[in-house]
Amino acid sequence: MTNALFWLVPISSVLALLFAWYFYKQLMKTDEGTPQMKKIALYVRRGAMSYLRQQYKVVGLVFLVLVILFSIMAFGFGVQNKWVPVAFLTGGFFSGLSGYLGMKTATYASARTANAARTSLNSGLRIAFRSGAVMGLVVVGLGLLDISFWYLLLNAVIPAEAMNPAHKLCVITTTMLTFGMGASTQALFARVGGGIYTKAADVGADLVGKVEAGIPEDDPRNPATIADNVGDNVGDVAGMGADLYESYCGSILATSALGAAAFMGAGETDMQMKAVIAPMLIAAVGILLSIIGIFSVRTREDAKMKDLLKSLSFGTNLSSVLIVFATFGILWALQLENWAFIGGSVIVGLLVGIVIGRSTEYYTSQSYRPTQRLSESGKTGPATVIISGIGLGMISTAVPVIAVVAGIILSYLFASGFDLSNVTLGLYGIGIAAVGMLSTLGITLATDAYGPIADNAGGNAEMSGLGEEVRKRTDALDSLGNTTAATGKGFAIGSAALTGLALLASYMEEIRIGLTRIGETVLEFADGTSVLISEATFTDFMRYYDITLMNPKVLSGMFIGSMMAFLFCGLTMNAVGRAAAHMVEEVRRQFREIKGILTGESEPDYERCVAISTQGAQREMVFPSLLAIVAPIATGLIFGVSGVVGLLIGGLSAGFVLAIFMANAGGAWDNAKKYVEEGNFGGKHSEVHKATVVGDTVGDPFKDTSGPSLNILIKLMSMVAIVMAGLTVAWSLL
Amino acid sequence: MTNALFWLVPISSVLALLFAWYFYKQLMKTDEGTPQMKKIALYVRRGAMSYLRQQYKVVGLVFLVLVILFSIMAFGFGVQNKWVPVAFLTGGFFSGLSGYLGMKTATYASARTANAARTSLNSGLRIAFRSGAVMGLVVVGLGLLDISFWYLLLNAVIPAEAMNPAHKLCVITTTMLTFGMGASTQALFARVGGGIYTKAADVGADLVGKVEAGIPEDDPRNPATIADNVGDNVGDVAGMGADLYESYCGSILATSALGAAAFMGAGETDMQMKAVIAPMLIAAVGILLSIIGIFSVRTREDAKMKDLLKSLSFGTNLSSVLIVFATFGILWALQLENWAFIGGSVIVGLLVGIVIGRSTEYYTSQSYRPTQRLSESGKTGPATVIISGIGLGMISTAVPVIAVVAGIILSYLFASGFDLSNVTLGLYGIGIAAVGMLSTLGITLATDAYGPIADNAGGNAEMSGLGEEVRKRTDALDSLGNTTAATGKGFAIGSAALTGLALLASYMEEIRIGLTRIGETVLEFADGTSVLISEATFTDFMRYYDITLMNPKVLSGMFIGSMMAFLFCGLTMNAVGRAAAHMVEEVRRQFREIKGILTGESEPDYERCVAISTQGAQREMVFPSLLAIVAPIATGLIFGVSGVVGLLIGGLSAGFVLAIFMANAGGAWDNAKKYVEEGNFGGKHSEVHKATVVGDTVGDPFKDTSGPSLNILIKLMSMVAIVMAGLTVAWSLL
Repeated sequence: MTNALFWLVPISSVLALLFAWYFYKQLMKTDEGTPQMKKIALYVRRGAMSYLRQQYKVVGLVFLVLVILFSIMAFGFGVQNKWVPVAFLTGGFFSGLSGYLGMKTATYASARTANAARTSLNSGLRIAFRSGAVMGLVVVGLGLLDISFWYLLLNAVIPAEAMNPAHKLCVITTTMLTFGMGASTQALFARVGGGIYTKAADVGADLVGKVEAGIPEDDPRNPATIADNVGDNVGDVAGMGADLYESYCGSILATSALGAAAFMGAGETDMQMKAVIAPMLIAAVGILLSIIGIFSVRTREDAKMKDLLKSLSFGTNLSSVLIVFATFGILWALQLENWAFIGGSVIVGLLVGIVIGRSTEYYTSQSYRPTQRLSESGKTGPATVIISGIGLGMISTAVPVIAVVAGIILSYLFASGFDLSNVTLGLYGIGIAAVGMLSTLGITLATDAYGPIADNAGGNAEMSGLGEEVRKRTDALDSLGNTTAATGKGFAIGSAALTGLALLASYMEEIRIGLTRIGETVLEFADGTSVLISEATFTDFMRYYDITLMNPKVLSGMFIGSMMAFLFCGLTMNAVGRAAAHMVEEVRRQFREIKGILTGESEPDYERCVAISTQGAQREMVFPSLLAIVAPIATGLIFGVSGVVGLLIGGLSAGFVLAIFMANAGGAWDNAKKYVEEGNFGGKHSEVHKATVVGDTVGDPFKDTSGPSLNILIKLMSMVAIVMAGLTVAWSLL
Repeated sequence: MTNALFWLVPISSVLALLFAWYFYKQLMKTDEGTPQMKKIALYVRRGAMSYLRQQYKVVGLVFLVLVILFSIMAFGFGVQNKWVPVAFLTGGFFSGLSGYLGMKTATYASARTANAARTSLNSGLRIAFRSGAVMGLVVVGLGLLDISFWYLLLNAVIPAEAMNPAHKLCVITTTMLTFGMGASTQALFARVGGGIYTKAADVGADLVGKVEAGIPEDDPRNPATIADNVGDNVGDVAGMGADLYESYCGSILATSALGAAAFMGAGETDMQMKAVIAPMLIAAVGILLSIIGIFSVRTREDAKMKDLLKSLSFGTNLSSVLIVFATFGILWALQLENWAFIGGSVIVGLLVGIVIGRSTEYYTSQSYRPTQRLSESGKTGPATVIISGIGLGMISTAVPVIAVVAGIILSYLFASGFDLSNVTLGLYGIGIAAVGMLSTLGITLATDAYGPIADNAGGNAEMSGLGEEVRKRTDALDSLGNTTAATGKGFAIGSAALTGLALLASYMEEIRIGLTRIGETVLEFADGTSVLISEATFTDFMRYYDITLMNPKVLSGMFIGSMMAFLFCGLTMNAVGRAAAHMVEEVRRQFREIKGILTGESEPDYERCVAISTQGAQREMVFPSLLAIVAPIATGLIFGVSGVVGLLIGGLSAGFVLAIFMANAGGAWDNAKKYVEEGNFGGKHSEVHKATVVGDTVGDPFKDTSGPSLNILIKLMSMVAIVMAGLTVAWSLL
């Protein structure tokens, strides 16, 4: 029950891993620099690894509890598929592994990047970018490997004769979504924990070091400076890796599930299989193009900043353009029904991602008026910087939302062949658009991940006293990364919204399976008519469960969903505030109690700061993350299926807008500070600078903790709802 | 076609206006104090009146354009009722009049309150509270007068024989909603314009006066101080008056419209009329109880702070308890079907309001841990104050949302007699719950409105040099108001959410009328079946327009709705930022150019600051307000009925949560600063105090501009959708 083309999926996943391994080996051959550089790198690496070990212990415990719960539901009450517990575990494991491998590479790369930057900008770029590529390729490689493995295994073990053959692929794809839930759970912990860690350290280091003691960033006299650099790795690298692994797999799995649902009619089994593997194939082709893109990033040894930028952009743009042609090619080769139109959805997805990326750049880069005006508002002090930044962030939600709305409508229309009533195929098109955006993740993630590597390289250079020139080069690399990463971030945000919608549809599909599993066969409507569950359309389910906007349960779910987004952000913001306060106290204590730190005569106690950030993050991450798991379950038990749909859609619409607001406000504050530091409005040490530093500090948890976690929250709530659908259905029929 | 009990409505409205007039006359008999006090009061009064004149000019222009538009739609294209243009105008006129009369009273009351506070706390309370009561009674009196007038007029002029007699009341009640749109439009401009004015002046005065020049609040040497006091009147009094006029009328009108829709069957005409006038009657009884409550607020001449608090609380609690009994009484006397259960919805509404009020108090009062901890976060500077405040505000959304959800479900269940499928009656119950919350607005608004009066009295006392003791008393009155106002605010917020839902249902009703007007008679479903439009239920309309959560148009509408809430807040936040920056520049200029201001030798140019705030507010208020009017129209033209419903529900769920977040974060920042000023964490002039002042400044537009405007935005978008329903329907059938 598969197509020869399918084998492209495991093959390209293995290829991705091989290239990742190759780049890693290449990296390890380069020199890590002076003994001092090696020592600093070792400190950071050790701190980061010890954090990850601690993190995985806590997360492991949560997984253990959930697996027991799933096993009881699957084996005890029979309201769930028996493969769920195992699939859940592998998703969590691979998501964690992606983060771990990416971070390990990053911690080896930072000193090497700094060392290479002593030679030239170009050498620095090469090392940092290739190390970022390791993470990009590991994420996509492990993702598709996991997907291939489960697809083949479930195809082999799930008996087709036990039910309508068309249902086999539905069961397979929705079971695979469970591994998506494992990945999402892991990702949420990684993002929240890592986000709290890094921002507690960053805020703590800045508040006492920069503001109170007046020593520069990354100064070795600052006790929190190692923790700050560890934070970049555990939050921005490991957290981001787990996050994008989740997004990548989530979009493919949700779309496959929709493909299975779209072609359930008799005699469509072959087309159904094609619709299921189409998103996997697009992703597989995307891997090959990413590898080509990565190799195309090369410059002459004496390259200027402008050349580097051109080269990086060339690589990502090349992959994005090629994926359009490759998608049409692969869909044609597959002979998928309506292939040309479905290919159109991929173009829509890519365009939406680019629009979001450009709008993000416009609102957050110091090259444009909004951020420059934000810097200017510092003339009247920190309060107006905060007011203007919040205003800017809120206004900046308009363009991305309009882009996503246009994307929803167009990709739906394309895939459904402009037939609005063909709901399943239309939703499939929305999923395909999301897959298109993430298909070249191999290279877009490389441009994203190399930012923190360059940042850490800068830290290493500063602490090792490599001098102004090297630091300038690492800063240039860092800001280069910020510019090229904008498109990648646009893809990540846009795909989250579209994947969220696709997951909503998968939820309805899982309801069908849940009803079937407990022996129901027909849906009886209020007016006495009925329809066979196996033949019921989405519209029938909507009618049966009264999922309209006048049902008080739906409305209640929506209010709770909106509230969940805010509550979750509030909890993570406060967590950062509390953890940072502990860090501030510790740094102040060390300055007070350890004599000679500020004169450089004695070394501060770095490890204590690392320990404080670790403990703070672990303590604070559990409650908000568990809330995301509990909310859909509780809503399902109290309000039933219609309440859950309300919750998911409320969380998605409010959460998406809130996430953009927080990310853009945070980004703009960061760059408004940099704009002042570049010498505008009085430059460094002016009152305007101080005011923008307040904005930057507030923006840290906005853009690196709460904002990015929201994308995962939205999807995790959907995944939990899907996995728990069997329970919800069984309970509501009790 | 009316019931004898109905006459209670116009009678109590006239009573309210008579008592308002009586309290006003009483007020004018008291002494305004020293010549200096009179002079200051005159300045403030003149500034406030001149602002309002300017404001009404701009709003008048907007109204003119809209009336022309409505006239074309009604008389030219026949897609609208011919009474719409006039009804729209009266709503706007009375809403504006409420604000004007309330503000006029307030500007006469502040100096008199300060003067009375020279004698005793109790005398001050008496004057301030009775002046607040003038506004409370004017709002409810004008509201019910307008409602009575239109109800009687439309009953007389709309011919019953032209259509199904049951439809007559539907047409009447939905036409009356047009006057709600007039009130909402006026209210939004008043809130946004007033909010920008007051916060630009406040922020400007604080930033230069307090922070840079180091002179105390309300110091006469500060050029922006008169503008600041004018701002309290135009924003907190006139803005709030127009706002609550809109809420009050909106909830009654939306519920009446639902009542008309709930009893449309043959032979139910009498019950239909009862359901239509029931919310008016509850409001009428609420007026009588409010007057009783106002008179019950009396204390002995030597009363202590605690006695005053007890006395104020007694008044509002008395009204709230009595309204429960009175509601059951009036519904029984009316012999409304299911009256005991519908009375239960009123209890639900009151309880929800109380829970929201208590939770607001817990999160924003310095007597509780959250705000105390917020003050403490000032130890690590302004950035952590902002982070913690945003965290606190976001977390504080949980309880109100859960309360509203419980309120939705319970009031729906009660009114529908625990029959979930009785959608119209269930929604009617939700509306009744909102009416219950606002029924005692006469007194709750009095406790709300007297806060800014006391605040202004303090300003007058400071500028007139009345000494520490008088200032302390006015401060005590102000903070007393803050505590008692919490419940009133809870009612206002909670009722906004419930009214929003009721308006959504009215929208569906208006769609029915719009279809009938253009000659449609049946709804044909996709499966070939059909139903007569005159007999179609809400569920039928949901099915016909496919208003389910899988329709991409609904989803698109929801994303746009969520975004609208953020965009609107962002625009108003930035407006305050820009207007405040102009004020800061002007105050700095005056300090620099007018010699002897700081030594008190020459008087600053107060009028220039007043003019700057006025111009800033007028310039900045137009765009965001027009956006609220344009968005539902554009969505309707592009996405049709299903898109509009998505827009309204997305705006409601995200906007409601966002509004609570902003109001509570702002309130907590305000009180965190006060807590420090009370001597905690170093007290005034400490670093912690400076940090909390930043929080307070950021909180100003949160709690007084963007937050409260959101409540109106939500309802205005619904009102516009309702009034434009005819156009949407006609357009989508083209």
